[in-house]
Amino acid sequence: MEHSLVDYSLYLVTDRGLSSGRSTLEIVETAVRGGVTCVQLREKECSTLEFIEQAIAVKERLKALNIPLIINDRLDVAQAVRADGVHLGQTDMPLKMAREIVKVSMIIGISAESLGDAIQAEKDGADYLGVSPIYATPTKTDTAPPLGLEGLRTIRAAVDIPLVGIGGLNPDNAAGVIRSGADGVAVVSAIVAADDPEKAARRLIENIERARRQ
Amino acid sequence: MEHSLVDYSLYLVTDRGLSSGRSTLEIVETAVRGGVTCVQLREKECSTLEFIEQAIAVKERLKALNIPLIINDRLDVAQAVRADGVHLGQTDMPLKMAREIVKVSMIIGISAESLGDAIQAEKDGADYLGVSPIYATPTKTDTAPPLGLEGLRTIRAAVDIPLVGIGGLNPDNAAGVIRSGADGVAVVSAIVAADDPEKAARRLIENIERARRQ
Repeated sequence: MEHSLVDYSLYLVTDRGLSSGRSTLEIVETAVRGGVTCVQLREKECSTLEFIEQAIAVKERLKALNIPLIINDRLDVAQAVRADGVHLGQTDMPLKMAREIVKVSMIIGISAESLGDAIQAEKDGADYLGVSPIYATPTKTDTAPPLGLEGLRTIRAAVDIPLVGIGGLNPDNAAGVIRSGADGVAVVSAIVAADDPEKAARRLIENIERARRQ
Repeated sequence: MEHSLVDYSLYLVTDRGLSSGRSTLEIVETAVRGGVTCVQLREKECSTLEFIEQAIAVKERLKALNIPLIINDRLDVAQAVRADGVHLGQTDMPLKMAREIVKVSMIIGISAESLGDAIQAEKDGADYLGVSPIYATPTKTDTAPPLGLEGLRTIRAAVDIPLVGIGGLNPDNAAGVIRSGADGVAVVSAIVAADDPEKAARRLIENIERARRQ
């Protein structure tokens, strides 16, 4: 997929631990029916082979819908399955090394936990930013202090590349993130842990689209 | 390093958990003084960034001695630090995918736990095999049944690429592995957990070289 064609509006980050026994593939399939526009597959515990097999299954499903697949952390897995991109946190591979390996063949997204992270990542050639955490979140406990919408607006004013907010986002606060200049809303538990991921995704995308029209 | 120039005689596989608080870099530095000819860096618990930083430090040390550095499992880390090779187990990235990514720029070693694994890996273009486990080992508990020297000889007769034995090997049984046709002896705890890794490596390489002369 052309980098410029990626729609970051509703960006799902998977989490096997929050899925209440449902498979990641099932969560993804249900969530895209509700309107998810981009999927990041995150697997921290399984073998490389299992991650690859999972990614192939998810990619197969997303490809038919023209929804991009981004792989968390593992550039090797992203290359193996020819994912659309890789998302790198501040303790993952440095952006410059990753860019040297994949050149422009792959989207590279970076987690920015501060204004400094964001400016540096744009300078180093990131394709988009995950600005986090907007709010405190139980999903990740190793995060920096919440940036709030004020922090998000400050980052938005400083960089030109697309950015999605992440951290404690749900249908009720998604609109504020969009109105603060984000190109999209990234969620984990708001969809993965929802009783009905399709319905949760639909509420999110509706609120995101409404916020854009206001 | 040219693939054909790799000396697999004494192949050290690192394990942070067995190092009794000593750093992996310290273990490697000491072990190469004793005669280790090839180092595989294995990190299962740390962040990608930490793995990369560790690999850069180890590579810097090994490069001066012309000793190859192989990265366990993580092709992305191997590419990032321009390691000499990557070692893939049966639950890591499939060999064909890895070869497609790195072409011939990198050595790819494969863990073979059976004659079938070994034949398949050679057919798919592995540069060398780690035949395991030769004996039962406390280092890894998820392994296949021990192959013994008989199993090793059967594999040696079936494939032409270099192979190292691994699993329960130490200075006392290393000679048997060489006499059974292995190109080298791979060890974890026999060096990593030794009070004196240099001395342990020296005893190993002496016994390996003696076995070759017999």
